[in-house]
Amino acid sequence: MAPHQHRITVRYGETDQMGFAHHANYMLYLEEARTALMAASGMPYGELEARGIGLPVRKADLRYRAPARFEDVLAVGVWIERIGPASITFAYRIDRPADGVHIASATMELASIDLESGALRPLPDDLRASLERTRGTD
Amino acid sequence: MAPHQHRITVRYGETDQMGFAHHANYMLYLEEARTALMAASGMPYGELEARGIGLPVRKADLRYRAPARFEDVLAVGVWIERIGPASITFAYRIDRPADGVHIASATMELASIDLESGALRPLPDDLRASLERTRGTD
Amino acid sequence: MAPHQHRITVRYGETDQMGFAHHANYMLYLEEARTALMAASGMPYGELEARGIGLPVRKADLRYRAPARFEDVLAVGVWIERIGPASITFAYRIDRPADGVHIASATMELASIDLESGALRPLPDDLRASLERTRGTD
Amino acid sequence: MAPHQHRITVRYGETDQMGFAHHANYMLYLEEARTALMAASGMPYGELEARGIGLPVRKADLRYRAPARFEDVLAVGVWIERIGPASITFAYRIDRPADGVHIASATMELASIDLESGALRPLPDDLRASLERTRGTD
Repeated sequence: MAPHQHRITVRYGETDQMGFAHHANYMLYLEEARTALMAASGMPYGELEARGIGLPVRKADLRYRAPARFEDVLAVGVWIERIGPASITFAYRIDRPADGVHIASATMELASIDLESGALRPLPDDLRASLERTRGTD
Repeated sequence: MAPHQHRITVRYGETDQMGFAHHANYMLYLEEARTALMAASGMPYGELEARGIGLPVRKADLRYRAPARFEDVLAVGVWIERIGPASITFAYRIDRPADGVHIASATMELASIDLESGALRPLPDDLRASLERTRGTD
Repeated sequence: MAPHQHRITVRYGETDQMGFAHHANYMLYLEEARTALMAASGMPYGELEARGIGLPVRKADLRYRAPARFEDVLAVGVWIERIGPASITFAYRIDRPADGVHIASATMELASIDLESGALRPLPDDLRASLERTRGTD
Repeated sequence: MAPHQHRITVRYGETDQMGFAHHANYMLYLEEARTALMAASGMPYGELEARGIGLPVRKADLRYRAPARFEDVLAVGVWIERIGPASITFAYRIDRPADGVHIASATMELASIDLESGALRPLPDDLRASLERTRGTD
């Protein structure tokens, strides 16, 4: 499938004294792209929480390949790698279109939990269907 | 009264490309000091929320006098300036003990709200009493 | 003058357990809007630093009027309130277009410093001219 | 070797609307612990940068096992897993001493670079020696 494309611009407060976008902030970039993907799939994350389901991150693997800097416009591609009974794995690739540099790659596994009890809870069928449609055929 | 003293150390991820602790992070330092003051007064903020009361910030005035840098140990003094019917005003002063430099000053007014409805809600008597004790006689 | 308008969307990681966009993050929203204003004026902040000049925040006054929440799209209006010999004061107003709620207001005074020495340094004439043009006639 | 132990307390601004310490902030906790380990080894990270060497993160793998919450005191254990010619791999384990819950584990690989050119640069011998001593015999 084609990844969902999202643009972010590095904020000054996200840089560190090395002059790089600090590595922790990439998680916010990935999250913003994932949120946009879910909204585009017809299942905004906020709606999911309103139904009592949360998707906390369980596993995050990031590879930083080249530094990003203040005011860099980054293209964050995000797609669904795997849908489990009570989990979703997203994959990401961050590029800087201005010079074509590959900035970072990542995968993140989110667990589906009941917000009340904190226990694992299978993904609701309509969310699964929305995500499967978004996923398309690989 | 003597301010409650709290120490924080500037994290790398809190610096910006100017090499300064980014100004937004001072709000986290002030918050951490305020949280420590409340815990010391016998009324931890978390307990307040458990009772259905939140203290969102309504007003924040900060003066940055000298930059702080990575690994700087900062002394954050915090005291209560005013207790209103449904608000508390905290005052702060940040110094760097290593060289005695005055880093910043601030005041923040927090509203007391009902977490359920979001409406203003008078401070409970026991919290007010705890804070008044903490405040002492000026 | 008409404020420069900038849009931001509240990220999940910017919320706090009260369910509000945490007050410290507003400083990043204001900064992003200010950066966009400077870029639009023909004097991107990054270029200024490349010329050895920094604009650290010296004074920040924020008024939080209504909470913003996850995925809220906020309109951040920013304009120049005053240009001093070695300082610029920006004013801001944040609204939520979806329901017309006024979220926050702020002013921030930035000092113009020499990045090498840290000392105050008068604003360069071309920056001043760019900003004056942006400012227009009130 | 025994991990270097570091304590952090979850800040309010680090929670998200799920009521958990947001996953991005763990990177700041790990960084703070790593910084403390380096300082304890006699080679503070700031000194390294003063010598023109930076250690940006190249690879980060995190496993979130149980949520941490506001005001939780977390014990972050950090140790050196591997020292390469121009890289160091740190391993981490975060526990919550109050109830013995294992919160998270992580490994992070940092590259050693020349801050001027951005190119890989072998770790200086004295840093390597400091770290090897810290590492001890496994």
